[in-house]
Amino acid sequence: MKKYIKDLVKKAKEANYKLAKLESERKNAILYEMADALLANKEFILKENAKDVKNAFKAKMAASFIDRLTLNEKRLDEMSASLKEIAKLADPVGKTISEAVRPNGLNIKKVRSPIGVILVIYEARPNVTSDCIGLLFKSSNVAILRGGKDSLNSNKAIGKILKEAIKNSGLNFTPFFIVENPNHKAVDLLLKENEYIDLVIPRGGETLIRKVVKASTIPVIKHYKGVCHIFIDSNVDTAKALKICVNAKVQRPSVCNAVEKILVHKDIAKYFLPLLKNEFDKYKVKIKGDAKTCKILKGVVRAKEEDWFAEYLDLIVTAKVVDGIEEAISHVNFYGSHHTDSILTRNTENAKKFVKEVDSACCFVNISTRFSDGFQFGLGAEIGISTDKLHARGPMGLEELTTYKWVVVGDGQIRE
Amino acid sequence: MKKYIKDLVKKAKEANYKLAKLESERKNAILYEMADALLANKEFILKENAKDVKNAFKAKMAASFIDRLTLNEKRLDEMSASLKEIAKLADPVGKTISEAVRPNGLNIKKVRSPIGVILVIYEARPNVTSDCIGLLFKSSNVAILRGGKDSLNSNKAIGKILKEAIKNSGLNFTPFFIVENPNHKAVDLLLKENEYIDLVIPRGGETLIRKVVKASTIPVIKHYKGVCHIFIDSNVDTAKALKICVNAKVQRPSVCNAVEKILVHKDIAKYFLPLLKNEFDKYKVKIKGDAKTCKILKGVVRAKEEDWFAEYLDLIVTAKVVDGIEEAISHVNFYGSHHTDSILTRNTENAKKFVKEVDSACCFVNISTRFSDGFQFGLGAEIGISTDKLHARGPMGLEELTTYKWVVVGDGQIRE
Repeated sequence: MKKYIKDLVKKAKEANYKLAKLESERKNAILYEMADALLANKEFILKENAKDVKNAFKAKMAASFIDRLTLNEKRLDEMSASLKEIAKLADPVGKTISEAVRPNGLNIKKVRSPIGVILVIYEARPNVTSDCIGLLFKSSNVAILRGGKDSLNSNKAIGKILKEAIKNSGLNFTPFFIVENPNHKAVDLLLKENEYIDLVIPRGGETLIRKVVKASTIPVIKHYKGVCHIFIDSNVDTAKALKICVNAKVQRPSVCNAVEKILVHKDIAKYFLPLLKNEFDKYKVKIKGDAKTCKILKGVVRAKEEDWFAEYLDLIVTAKVVDGIEEAISHVNFYGSHHTDSILTRNTENAKKFVKEVDSACCFVNISTRFSDGFQFGLGAEIGISTDKLHARGPMGLEELTTYKWVVVGDGQIRE
Repeated sequence: MKKYIKDLVKKAKEANYKLAKLESERKNAILYEMADALLANKEFILKENAKDVKNAFKAKMAASFIDRLTLNEKRLDEMSASLKEIAKLADPVGKTISEAVRPNGLNIKKVRSPIGVILVIYEARPNVTSDCIGLLFKSSNVAILRGGKDSLNSNKAIGKILKEAIKNSGLNFTPFFIVENPNHKAVDLLLKENEYIDLVIPRGGETLIRKVVKASTIPVIKHYKGVCHIFIDSNVDTAKALKICVNAKVQRPSVCNAVEKILVHKDIAKYFLPLLKNEFDKYKVKIKGDAKTCKILKGVVRAKEEDWFAEYLDLIVTAKVVDGIEEAISHVNFYGSHHTDSILTRNTENAKKFVKEVDSACCFVNISTRFSDGFQFGLGAEIGISTDKLHARGPMGLEELTTYKWVVVGDGQIRE
């Protein structure tokens, strides 16, 4: 096993340097070849995927798990289309971030460059395999992919087809690697290979991610959870605020950017909370409240301390009456997950204060928390959302999959 | 000890949120107060520093160690001046990195914001204490400072004086913390506090830094070593190349951006290497060479495999004859430390290829490697040089001490 991992990461680092030479046009042409290969080999991929699905049924996995695992014609079409979309996106590599000429004549540029070798650890979702291969290839990064072991046949099949497509296009190396050893120890070994792997992106539940952080000597970009807040200020457009709260909770309650906590300014709590409850009742949203909320709203369950930290991912929301913006900001910073928080207000000073002092990846004014998303932000693609502060924060697109280098050009200058 | 550390990091996180409220003008005024306080309390600081120096002599520490530890009037003047320089630099916090308006009317900005709480681990150099306090305060980050235990009296004294200055300026919290517990276990405990500390910057020897990386569950930005290369291409201005090689090796051989390896194109090796040796002889630079170099230069020691990885920090250089730019790039990527590498050439295509394919923080064309420095790059200040790729790469100034947040402003938008 040790040898298998060491060989794999060494090959990945070699591919890293070969990949750095490719121009955008070449990369895009290969992405189209990959997209076509997925369509041309549907039968084979679906046959292999069926083995995984059969095993998952045998193992009595949850219906939602099996749903995410299962491929069909439509999903393969989407995976193929996604690769073509990635081909159309602007290549971040080589883009100048900033440029300056120093008094001694040196031309100093910060230029976007690939991160290198990136290990992605994810659950049993075969579509993630082709998405990651596409995004990392486009940004000239080598992918090492470790999907959930329940999807190993599917991932191997997708990998085989995409490798063939790459070979047919004339490339003499493979820019991605599927970890085919299902043993958990393989991941532990990979997480120590900080000389060869430059970044780890774990995707999945909080427990898995915390394990990765603990074991890894490689930098990790992660997403823990989305405990998103909406603060209803006293000077607010009630109709808009109600629509936003409903949208943020109800439109898709199972995702990380759904709102989990609503903080209401004390001056409008008696007026606003009953209206909110009326709306939420229509969608069967259950409200838990602090003492003041429970006084205003009859029949509402009293929230416990742990509720304020909780990510329900369900039709439940916790509501709290706050003294004003100071308390709202303190509450968000203390109990939140630094993901996405929104203030609803007509007061521009308060809006400015909120976005300055709230320590979150996404600080919103007068919109639904559901907009926290790479496609909504216009990034064109999303590898995930980071709740970290280092390197990338919030939705991560292609640019966030690059680092930079300093390119300095002179004409014989030496240092005095 | 556990309680001491937990209290410390909790206080630091509280200070983090208070510090986020301060405007630039206020921060700058406080930096000037701190600078003046250092001057007004020279006597006290020098007295405390003398205790550390006395202990270091008793412990028979090396002269260079004692030199770095020792403060005097001039060094205190410089530390004070440095704080005033930091006050004059532009504040990165709040600066808009990019802005876009989406078709649905959302205004999306990426805005620079503080990283939060930063732990700096460094050797017994008391001037680093005030420099770090200044740089982190200016970028609205809370500093937790753990200097070498041999400088504890000095650091406590500097901390005391700067805390008083801050208090006198009317600020009701302390934006930095000196770890006063000299026990090594304190560092181990701090490195697990990833809920409260956002970043660790270790400064010091490679062994120390590798220990920190292994123990830390907090992201680390680090500098391992500078194995810097110069590649002499066949089409080169010989006079300039010789001047650059001498400057890069001789001007200050003990620093990380001094050149350690010189790669010479085979077509000019017989001509160039003797000229280079002639120059290096003047400065007593010892050359080690590969087989081909040893054939051309009589009396040169044959380099061993480990020499190609070595950072000498001394008047020694390893020279190698390469077949051309492909071999030069492969060599730099395999043996180098991804710090700073320079190509000397008149061939613009080769220059472009080199800066694209060399995987280093600083890729230079026709200049000395010694320019790899925050002040030389015009950053105005430098907290260190990163050989990492994540978050910050190469010289780190104030901007590199910030992250960003997405500030999105709308007018009631919900997601369809």
